[in-house]
Amino acid sequence: MVVTKRIGLQTKGHCDIIDITPEVEQKLGETDIRNGTVTLFVAGSTAGISTIEFESGLLSDFQSMWERNAPKDIPYDHDRRWGDGNGYSHVRASLLGASLVIPFNDRRLALGTWQQVVLVDFDNRPRSRQIIVQIMGE
Amino acid sequence: MVVTKRIGLQTKGHCDIIDITPEVEQKLGETDIRNGTVTLFVAGSTAGISTIEFESGLLSDFQSMWERNAPKDIPYDHDRRWGDGNGYSHVRASLLGASLVIPFNDRRLALGTWQQVVLVDFDNRPRSRQIIVQIMGE
Amino acid sequence: MVVTKRIGLQTKGHCDIIDITPEVEQKLGETDIRNGTVTLFVAGSTAGISTIEFESGLLSDFQSMWERNAPKDIPYDHDRRWGDGNGYSHVRASLLGASLVIPFNDRRLALGTWQQVVLVDFDNRPRSRQIIVQIMGE
Repeated sequence: MVVTKRIGLQTKGHCDIIDITPEVEQKLGETDIRNGTVTLFVAGSTAGISTIEFESGLLSDFQSMWERNAPKDIPYDHDRRWGDGNGYSHVRASLLGASLVIPFNDRRLALGTWQQVVLVDFDNRPRSRQIIVQIMGE
Repeated sequence: MVVTKRIGLQTKGHCDIIDITPEVEQKLGETDIRNGTVTLFVAGSTAGISTIEFESGLLSDFQSMWERNAPKDIPYDHDRRWGDGNGYSHVRASLLGASLVIPFNDRRLALGTWQQVVLVDFDNRPRSRQIIVQIMGE
Repeated sequence: MVVTKRIGLQTKGHCDIIDITPEVEQKLGETDIRNGTVTLFVAGSTAGISTIEFESGLLSDFQSMWERNAPKDIPYDHDRRWGDGNGYSHVRASLLGASLVIPFNDRRLALGTWQQVVLVDFDNRPRSRQIIVQIMGE
């Protein structure tokens, strides 16, 4: 059985990290599927999906890691060509990855207690995002 | 329903980034599955799969990020031991990841308009690659 | 058909890299599913899953990459707030990713010959870990 849902949200961009765990759990609860996988996918090339312990210290630490490893303030060929100034956003998103697959059993996601599912919006401006939540199982 | 296809291609190695979106869409179109997931997986430990806006500026920016974060010209224990000079390729591939899962509905992949699926071949020589395209759904 | 198994293991922490390929293959062999995907997921926010050629040189190279890109010995807001000293572990785990999906056919995983599935435990102490192995297919 396959059920497809969508989560729509507004981000602030600039490495905004948004906890989408409650929405994912809600979408799962709307189906009759007991065991299977939830595949999350964000359309667009300047955002990614991962898990993190959602507390403000780590959100800041994760953002600092991106600033060290794919800095905003170095030259990007993308920006030279297109002038939109978000070359760093694209590079970060390609490295983090656009999808995440989480198993669930008896309707419960296999997440740890201090492990939340997050959308990371790397773009350099606020964005409206849609996350596909595809639930497959039996 | 599960259908397994393969995409075979030749790469140039050296962080060659190849747009495989048309091939993935073609394989999907050859099946009768309307809704589900496409799981892409590259066998081998010096290549990875991700998404990117496929334009030459970003391809160069993505390659530069790898050169900064997992440089070719530093010593690698793998190279000391095996002498094949591609330690950096392995490290990059393990970080990027060998698989990607993309949901589809009504036979259309959930990709953004400027979001292409790419194979990244990090090896230090041209390679012949096989990508598994496993389509699961109903 | 969906079957859920678990792999339990003890790690040493400190970027311990553990080859779990034999256990994944064993779990797959315990089912009657011939074709499909294995979804691996580690609960917890200081460990990740990937593939690597499992030889000691590369294990060391992969660990060095993490030390360069998310160093242990820089200040982390997480540590300032919670004092557990593993801020770097969380950041690394969020970047690597908690899940991996591997297709299989005729009960054989689509791995390359020199490509093993690994759990990477980034935490700063030994941990007891559970990896979900969810097998879906027909």
